Amino acid sequence: MSQPAYTRLDVDERRRRLLDLGAELFARHAYDELSMAQIAREAGISKALLYHYFPSKQAYFVATLEQAAAELAQATQPDGDLPPVEQLAASLDAYLGWIERNAGAYTKLIQSVGSVAEVRELVERVRSQTADRILAGIAPGRRPSPALRVAVRGWLWFMDGAVLDWLEHRDIDRARLHGLLLGTLLGAVTAAGEPFTG
Amino acid sequence: MSQPAYTRLDVDERRRRLLDLGAELFARHAYDELSMAQIAREAGISKALLYHYFPSKQAYFVATLEQAAAELAQATQPDGDLPPVEQLAASLDAYLGWIERNAGAYTKLIQSVGSVAEVRELVERVRSQTADRILAGIAPGRRPSPALRVAVRGWLWFMDGAVLDWLEHRDIDRARLHGLLLGTLLGAVTAAGEPFTG
Repeated sequence: MSQPAYTRLDVDERRRRLLDLGAELFARHAYDELSMAQIAREAGISKALLYHYFPSKQAYFVATLEQAAAELAQATQPDGDLPPVEQLAASLDAYLGWIERNAGAYTKLIQSVGSVAEVRELVERVRSQTADRILAGIAPGRRPSPALRVAVRGWLWFMDGAVLDWLEHRDIDRARLHGLLLGTLLGAVTAAGEPFTG
Repeated sequence: MSQPAYTRLDVDERRRRLLDLGAELFARHAYDELSMAQIAREAGISKALLYHYFPSKQAYFVATLEQAAAELAQATQPDGDLPPVEQLAASLDAYLGWIERNAGAYTKLIQSVGSVAEVRELVERVRSQTADRILAGIAPGRRPSPALRVAVRGWLWFMDGAVLDWLEHRDIDRARLHGLLLGTLLGAVTAAGEPFTG
């Protein structure tokens, strides 16, 4: 029997499945606990084939995070037809929805920032892109003041800290958290001396 | 020549000096770059003596952080005679002062949370103690509501994110940052449905 000739689609599809599996495995296990041999076993493929897709466990880990970040960016893409505050409210709701569906992976990610340089860079890049989006909504067409930049950057950290606490305790509902996050952004932007208008 | 007999004070004093040196070295160099041999050389002692004080590089690193956290807790100890909001404003000012004096170490610490389990635990413990202090000021003598707990926990993250941005750009002054932080806390506490009174 000859091996089937992989078409381009097969390769992409297998890669996508491996990334989905990785998101699940890295959420369930500590990074150090997982070996490439174990991952290959879970995927039902040979270790050699796994290495064909990802040269190292770290490369695999980073690729699963990249995919998650791309999904998240897609899910929270603002609707340009809405006024800025409504865009923000809708994106934030989509963000919280994504987190609810990926709670384990999200918690692991935020708690492991710093363990792998690529992870920190990825989280920083996502925060920075999100900050730019928010600033473009609050201060359209002009360079944001330094205080506003600090406020929005700080708020993205607030969001991660608040979300981690929410996931840990689950004693307020998502709508309440959504209101708390938006209200805090309003407070921060106001404290930075900016009007916050739709 | 015989070795001098170390008195208890000598031991404590040397340990303290090693911790001060560690705070400086870990702020200047990446953790992985530093070896115990190099640290011993910088301290002007033998590697054996360094290992006598700290069983591993990680133990040494964690001990320098513990000392820094203890100093910080000391510096930001609230004055119980002041009204809560003034206590908070004074502690926050002391916190920012400590950070200005230890900018390198602080940045390294926050960016490396996650790389060493003990570091994450330490940062979590400091955040948790600080949150308890703030909650005791805002909601004295009663159990804080879940939303208020989320707000204060989130705000401590806000503070780290805002401070990192401030240290990176230095384009707003410390008083402005102080106002922005307090204003944001006010916004977050209000959004959590709590009155914020002195």
